[in-house]
Amino acid sequence: MSPGVRLEPIGTVHSRFKEPAELPPPAFAPPRFFERSTGRIEVRPEYAAGLDGLEDFSHIIVLFAFHKAGAAKLKVTPPGQTEARGVFATRSPHRPNPLGMSVLRLLGREGRILEVSGLDLIDGTPVLDIKPYTRRDRKSHIRTGWLRNKRRPAR
Amino acid sequence: MSPGVRLEPIGTVHSRFKEPAELPPPAFAPPRFFERSTGRIEVRPEYAAGLDGLEDFSHIIVLFAFHKAGAAKLKVTPPGQTEARGVFATRSPHRPNPLGMSVLRLLGREGRILEVSGLDLIDGTPVLDIKPYTRRDRKSHIRTGWLRNKRRPAR
Repeated sequence: MSPGVRLEPIGTVHSRFKEPAELPPPAFAPPRFFERSTGRIEVRPEYAAGLDGLEDFSHIIVLFAFHKAGAAKLKVTPPGQTEARGVFATRSPHRPNPLGMSVLRLLGREGRILEVSGLDLIDGTPVLDIKPYTRRDRKSHIRTGWLRNKRRPAR
Repeated sequence: MSPGVRLEPIGTVHSRFKEPAELPPPAFAPPRFFERSTGRIEVRPEYAAGLDGLEDFSHIIVLFAFHKAGAAKLKVTPPGQTEARGVFATRSPHRPNPLGMSVLRLLGREGRILEVSGLDLIDGTPVLDIKPYTRRDRKSHIRTGWLRNKRRPAR
């Protein structure tokens, strides 16, 4: 088995969401809630040149650290569900490796600042990588397991 | 800026591609080449329970380490291109954090073994995370920058 991997942030998220509790679970957010959610990704000066050409893509893949996730769990009960699922069958932040992935719309780039929408990340989130979203990332005829049966969480 | 993140593999890829050179650049692979490319992901025994429920999804997001990438670069010239691009505008393995992301079709699960197709990873690739692919990961009306102008690499 390979040894571990050590990563350093290449940038930071600037978001109006300051704490995890301010983010609605994506499956239960009002329609178009996240589409309207905008913010910025600030890339470290030493990596700015790595962004050249990204502005010609409409969407980006952002890999980030769930830096406020706390302890990992192997089973989680997603919001609105009654049954526990394996953490790898969910997008829960409580993962063995606290890695997150979001596809964001890229509204513009000014130097090392990316303006994005679709933002579902909290302020200060460490960004580990940014990739262009391509046709190979878009799958049709997908089956989405327990997400089909989602219900609004009880209040 | 947050401190670094230390990650340990949760599993390993079993693939017929043994070295990076055996993998065609995805943009230039024959049609349906990767759709037909099958293999397995073996998850460590201690994380097997984290897979429960994943078998009901048709596609999975695999985050992995480019463990044979070598040194990072800020500018790369993708196969078939003459112009260098920022590494974050490409899917090159030569990234500041050597993280990769692939969307694979999940053919089946047997315990802690996942049978997949669409496999574009080499044998022994350390798997860092597995997530279900959901409707939010599927974007329509995308613009894909320099990838529109791709040409087959010269021989």
